[in-house]
Amino acid sequence: MGKQQGEMGKEILQSAQRAREARLKLRTASGPVKNRVLELIAEGLVKGQKQLLSANALDLKSGGKKGLSEAMLDRLRLSKERIQEMAEGVTEVIKLPDPVGQITGIQTRPNGLLVGRMRIPLGVILIIYEARPNVTVEAAALCLKSGNAVILRGGSEAIHSNLALGKILGAALTKAGLDPNTAQVVATIEREAVNELLKLDRYIDLVIPRGGEQLIRKVVELSRIPVLKHYKGVCHIFVDRGADLEKAQAICLNAKVQRPGVCNAMETLLVDEPIAKKFLPEMARLFRKAGVELRGDQRTRAMVPTAKPATEDDWKAEYLDLILAVRVVDGMEAAIRHIQQYGSDHTDAIITENHTRAMEFIQRVDSSSVMINASTRFSDGFQYGLGAEIGISTTRLHAYGPMGLEELTVAKFVVFGNGQTREK
Amino acid sequence: MGKQQGEMGKEILQSAQRAREARLKLRTASGPVKNRVLELIAEGLVKGQKQLLSANALDLKSGGKKGLSEAMLDRLRLSKERIQEMAEGVTEVIKLPDPVGQITGIQTRPNGLLVGRMRIPLGVILIIYEARPNVTVEAAALCLKSGNAVILRGGSEAIHSNLALGKILGAALTKAGLDPNTAQVVATIEREAVNELLKLDRYIDLVIPRGGEQLIRKVVELSRIPVLKHYKGVCHIFVDRGADLEKAQAICLNAKVQRPGVCNAMETLLVDEPIAKKFLPEMARLFRKAGVELRGDQRTRAMVPTAKPATEDDWKAEYLDLILAVRVVDGMEAAIRHIQQYGSDHTDAIITENHTRAMEFIQRVDSSSVMINASTRFSDGFQYGLGAEIGISTTRLHAYGPMGLEELTVAKFVVFGNGQTREK
Repeated sequence: MGKQQGEMGKEILQSAQRAREARLKLRTASGPVKNRVLELIAEGLVKGQKQLLSANALDLKSGGKKGLSEAMLDRLRLSKERIQEMAEGVTEVIKLPDPVGQITGIQTRPNGLLVGRMRIPLGVILIIYEARPNVTVEAAALCLKSGNAVILRGGSEAIHSNLALGKILGAALTKAGLDPNTAQVVATIEREAVNELLKLDRYIDLVIPRGGEQLIRKVVELSRIPVLKHYKGVCHIFVDRGADLEKAQAICLNAKVQRPGVCNAMETLLVDEPIAKKFLPEMARLFRKAGVELRGDQRTRAMVPTAKPATEDDWKAEYLDLILAVRVVDGMEAAIRHIQQYGSDHTDAIITENHTRAMEFIQRVDSSSVMINASTRFSDGFQYGLGAEIGISTTRLHAYGPMGLEELTVAKFVVFGNGQTREK
Repeated sequence: MGKQQGEMGKEILQSAQRAREARLKLRTASGPVKNRVLELIAEGLVKGQKQLLSANALDLKSGGKKGLSEAMLDRLRLSKERIQEMAEGVTEVIKLPDPVGQITGIQTRPNGLLVGRMRIPLGVILIIYEARPNVTVEAAALCLKSGNAVILRGGSEAIHSNLALGKILGAALTKAGLDPNTAQVVATIEREAVNELLKLDRYIDLVIPRGGEQLIRKVVELSRIPVLKHYKGVCHIFVDRGADLEKAQAICLNAKVQRPGVCNAMETLLVDEPIAKKFLPEMARLFRKAGVELRGDQRTRAMVPTAKPATEDDWKAEYLDLILAVRVVDGMEAAIRHIQQYGSDHTDAIITENHTRAMEFIQRVDSSSVMINASTRFSDGFQYGLGAEIGISTTRLHAYGPMGLEELTVAKFVVFGNGQTREK
């Protein structure tokens, strides 16, 4: 701390330049070499657990002094079991197919040229996240597997843990014959370090911020580098007049209560008017039993007197808690309008047995995940079979929805000729 | 002109808001309706040619007064033939397959969920370009076909022509039952209008600037909206020691002289040392015959005494003219290093009969187009079989290389369930 702005800027610049250089060496590494790095990281985590735990103890101690909440401290905390889990997570990434080098869609053109596309790494990726040291390892493993250099900037509360993890990453890279700068943990804890990094669009290809909405808005505002992100998940379920009400109950309950604190939990329930009377009172009883507070519009409250009145803010709210906004709507058209107005492009579902409306809903609702007769909680890279998840994007560019390894690559054109020249 | 900043800002904001609203109606339009709009545009162009020509005459007159170069005036000029060509271009777009709604990669998950991806429009696209009225029509046709609303901001020199074209677009949209605001020509000629537009990331999803490097840098600097662009094309051909020298000559000549003023023409020739003596003098003779000025490094000049000395700037130059930088390199490794140092990620080719080196080059050079034994001039959406080209991207995100209709879409996740809920 107390470092001069200029000096810090220089350090940050050099770190980005070193990542850019290191990426070229990683680019020529074979699949087995990249997997060897991951193996060495997994081994390093287990072997280095004593150092990791004592570094983590420093963070916990100063976090306690700073008055971090118990939830924050829990996210920050490492244990033997959690280190073991991180190591296993890295081992899982080894098994995933490497998207780099995959050639698709080769067509023969009339002049005999073969034109196709080949997946290549994006280059250098900056990950900005809060006080969860496990993100350091997860993100590094996915970036390295997909051939990308990575700069990791975690919350300052986790700085000792992250630097200790960074040492393990660097040692694994070096031992596998690669440049330790391929995966770097930013050592500067000043907030300005992030601002400096976000200017370096010459060296960094993509920023993925993970964390609260405020963190993400700040990154988007300051960045000259493309950002993939989602602000929040205001997920809707629309129970259509054609719904199987038993399925609807099971799905809605699951989507709200199975894990309410995550972005793919349901936040607003839309109920089609003709079935509302039959569906809502029993649904409300199940929610009440599960401890869910309901906030409804007037028509909902007429059927469910215990529901509190919903305000405009409730339609926009990502509660991340056992609270649910409920609205009675006049048909699918009104439901779609509600979602277009208040939704967050995260995940929205229809519950119906009516095929025509199901297909129309899935075509017209352009959220990053749209579902028929399933819980929004399935919106997740692992559940979708991507094998991993580096984040979720609600930006309609490059990746939309959960991002796996493939989303850390882009496709270049490859052209195989035998002497072709162009006439006009 | 003379309008107050605040008032202009308000107009621009409203125009973006109207585009965002109009996009929803376009989104529900069927393929035949979208094609009907394109038909009506093609008809409108031919029927409205008198008005177009007189609007264009105003632009040409004020362009002449402002002292625009003959090349600029030529790009600005409309004629019966050019209007006919524009109409035919739109008719070609009708024939292209509509990427929207395409579902790919459906997998059955262990719990029975079907998970796939469906292509959807990006939303609202802003195109910023210089004084070529044909871009107005081309870009509008591609955006509309792919379900996107479009805001068109051409050079102020073409304002009368563009507004006349905008009327034809609006009339066609209205006649087909869509909102005329789905394709808008920005009427404000003040430069500040662009600055205002580039702030509206809430309403506009993507900016594609087309034109000179200066225009594009300005857009990237000011934009809060994601930008797809390429600054320039410094395309290389590496003639490897394993090249068929006859093929190499034909390809190099074609890549330099067939149309030197475009971004996919070769700007630097790299020649492998062992074949340089055999290859270069004859190649230089062919270039000389075609009027090409050569600028070589020392080793080149030892073999081609007529070549001027190349400076560091020549390795970075996009001449867009009958000038070529030539360098003798020691093998493919040195060629790749040169391309990584000076290239622009546009198009780079190797000429060789050696399979191993050809495959290594195509894997290691991560330009947006990489070729074996073909002229760089083929780097183009039409030549690649995309059926269209809205621009070229050298940004490693979303699209890399020539962009067709598919690149104006993104894929959302679609999930087909039958009542699934998540257990953990």
